[in-house]
Amino acid sequence: MKIAVDAMGGDKAPAEIIKGAVLAVQKYPCEVILVGDEKKIRGTFDEKNLPITIRHADEVIEMGEHPADAVRCKKNSSIVVATKMVKDSECDAVLSAGSTGAAVAAAQLILRRIHGIGRPAIATPIPTPRGTTLLLDSGANVDSRPEHLIQSGIMGSLYAEHVLKIKNPSVALLNIGEEETKGNEQAKEAYQLLKNLTTINFAGNAEGRDIPRGVFDVVICDGFVGNVVLKFGEGLALTIMKLLTEELTANGGAELLGKSLLDSTFKNLYKRLDVSENGGAPLLGVDGYCVISHGSSDARAICSAIGVACDYVNSKILEHIRATL
Amino acid sequence: MKIAVDAMGGDKAPAEIIKGAVLAVQKYPCEVILVGDEKKIRGTFDEKNLPITIRHADEVIEMGEHPADAVRCKKNSSIVVATKMVKDSECDAVLSAGSTGAAVAAAQLILRRIHGIGRPAIATPIPTPRGTTLLLDSGANVDSRPEHLIQSGIMGSLYAEHVLKIKNPSVALLNIGEEETKGNEQAKEAYQLLKNLTTINFAGNAEGRDIPRGVFDVVICDGFVGNVVLKFGEGLALTIMKLLTEELTANGGAELLGKSLLDSTFKNLYKRLDVSENGGAPLLGVDGYCVISHGSSDARAICSAIGVACDYVNSKILEHIRATL
Repeated sequence: MKIAVDAMGGDKAPAEIIKGAVLAVQKYPCEVILVGDEKKIRGTFDEKNLPITIRHADEVIEMGEHPADAVRCKKNSSIVVATKMVKDSECDAVLSAGSTGAAVAAAQLILRRIHGIGRPAIATPIPTPRGTTLLLDSGANVDSRPEHLIQSGIMGSLYAEHVLKIKNPSVALLNIGEEETKGNEQAKEAYQLLKNLTTINFAGNAEGRDIPRGVFDVVICDGFVGNVVLKFGEGLALTIMKLLTEELTANGGAELLGKSLLDSTFKNLYKRLDVSENGGAPLLGVDGYCVISHGSSDARAICSAIGVACDYVNSKILEHIRATL
Repeated sequence: MKIAVDAMGGDKAPAEIIKGAVLAVQKYPCEVILVGDEKKIRGTFDEKNLPITIRHADEVIEMGEHPADAVRCKKNSSIVVATKMVKDSECDAVLSAGSTGAAVAAAQLILRRIHGIGRPAIATPIPTPRGTTLLLDSGANVDSRPEHLIQSGIMGSLYAEHVLKIKNPSVALLNIGEEETKGNEQAKEAYQLLKNLTTINFAGNAEGRDIPRGVFDVVICDGFVGNVVLKFGEGLALTIMKLLTEELTANGGAELLGKSLLDSTFKNLYKRLDVSENGGAPLLGVDGYCVISHGSSDARAICSAIGVACDYVNSKILEHIRATL
C-alpha cells in the first residue's frame, strides 16, 4: 500500500504533514511518498529506517488560485504530481490538506470521473453521540443538479457500508422539513428520484439538527450547503467552548475543577467533536483513491487521514461504485 | 401598541402562548389580542386586569398543510385572522409560533410585499460572543435569485441599524470562501451586485464559521441554507452539552462542581446560545409588521418575541425600507 502525500498542502505544511507521515507508517501497514520541495523535506525524518520516500515537485498551488487553471498550468505542483502517481499506478491513493478546489480539480482532470458520475463529492465523516454520520457533498460541487444528489446518495451508501462497516446504512436528504413536499426545487426533485431508488435505504428528509444528533448514517446535500454547515459547526463548537470557559471562570467552577481536569475535559470533548480527529474525507466519484484533509491539519490529523486512505483502498469500493452505476 | 398573537400556533399552544402574553403585557407597554379558539383561551388568565383581549378564530393551520393553499382555504384560521387585523389597522403587528410557511404565506397574501421586494426574508438574530449577528433569510424563500439576496442585504442592514441599534452595520454574503470568485452561481452573481451597492456597508464573503464568531453584523443567504444552518446549530449545541455532561460525569468533574453549580452553568450557557431567548424573528419585506417565533417557544420566548415586535413597530423601519427600495 503506497500513499502519495502532498507535503506542501495545508496551513502547517510541510512540517506537520511530514510528522503525520512518520506517525502513519508506524501505525498502518503502508509506505508514504512525500511529494513536494525536496530541499524542505530532506533531512527532516529518519529516511533510513522508515518506509517514506520523497518525490520532488517544485511548484505549489496556493489557496487563492483558480483551481482548474492552476492544475492545468502548474504541471509540477505537488498536488498534480501526487495525483499523477495514482493515475500511473505508482501509488494507491493521494492525500492533500492543501487547496480543496485544487485537489478536486486535479482528481477530476487527471483521474477522471467514474462512468455515470456527473460530479464528484467530498464525504466528510461527522462524529456524533451515536457513531458517525457521513455528510456529502461537503464542498466539491456547489451547483448540484438533483441527479448529482442521487449519485452522492449511492456513493455515500456504498462508502458507509464498505468502509465505515455500517450494515444497510440509512440515507437521508438534507432539507428544511420532514415532509416530502418541503424544500427548494433541487431538494423536491431529488426526493422523488431517491424515493424510487431501490439500491439504497432512503430514509426521507433530514433536518439540520439531525446531523449532529446522528439520526442517519448518510446525509446528502449540495456542496455549497455542506461546506457552510461544516464550517458553521466548527465555529460554533469553538464559540461554545469559549462561552463555557467564561461561565466556569465567572462562577468559580473552573477553580473547583482545577486546571488539569478542566483542560482534559475540553480536550476530550474537542476530540469527540473534531472532524479532523476522524481523519480525511474521501473524494467519491473520481476514478482513483483521493482523500482530502482539513487545511488546518496537524500531524495527528494527517496520520488519521492516511489511515482513512488505507481503509478506503482496502475496501475496493471503486469497484462497487463502478458496478452499481 | 397592539399585538395580534396567534394563540393556536406552536408546539406548546395555546397554554405557553397565553402565559407569554401575560408576561409581555406586564413588561412592555402594549396590548395583546389573543387570536384563536375562544373556548380554549377564555378563563386561562386575569381578563379583568390585564390588557389582553380575545378574538375568536375557529380554524388552525397544521404543520403538514401546504401553506398558501391552507391560507386561501382556512379564512377563519388563527394566523389568517391575526394577519388581517394588521392589514385592517386593528393591530400594529402579528406574531406566530405556528407553521412558518403559513405565517409567511399569510403575510405575503394579506399584507402583500413592499414595492421593490421580490421575496420576503426571515431575519434571525443570533447571539454571539460579540453581540448579535442577524442571519437572513432563515427560511422564507428557498429558491433565491441573486437580486433577492441583495434585497435581503438592504433590509437586514436597515433592521440592524434601526432596531438592533448597530451603527453602519457590516453586511456579508454567506459563501464557501473569502475570495469573490468563490461559490455557486447564485453567490458569485450576488457578490458582484453587492460590491456595487452604495447603500450598505458590504464587507465581502462570510464563511460558516464567521456566524457563531460574530464577525459580521448581518449575514445574508438563501432561505434553504439559512434554515439548515440554524437547525444544525440547534442540534449541535444540544449535542455538545450532552457530550460535556458525559465527560464531566465520567471524570468526576460533575461531582466536584456539585449539581447546583453544574445546572446553573449549563442554564446560563444555553441562555447565551439559545436563539429563542433572543425573541422572535421579523419577516422583512412584507408591508406590515410580522414576527415569527420558533415552534418550540415557551412563555419566556413568546414574551421576548412580543418585545421584539414592539421594538420593530417603534422603529418605523417599514418606512425606511419603502424609502430605500
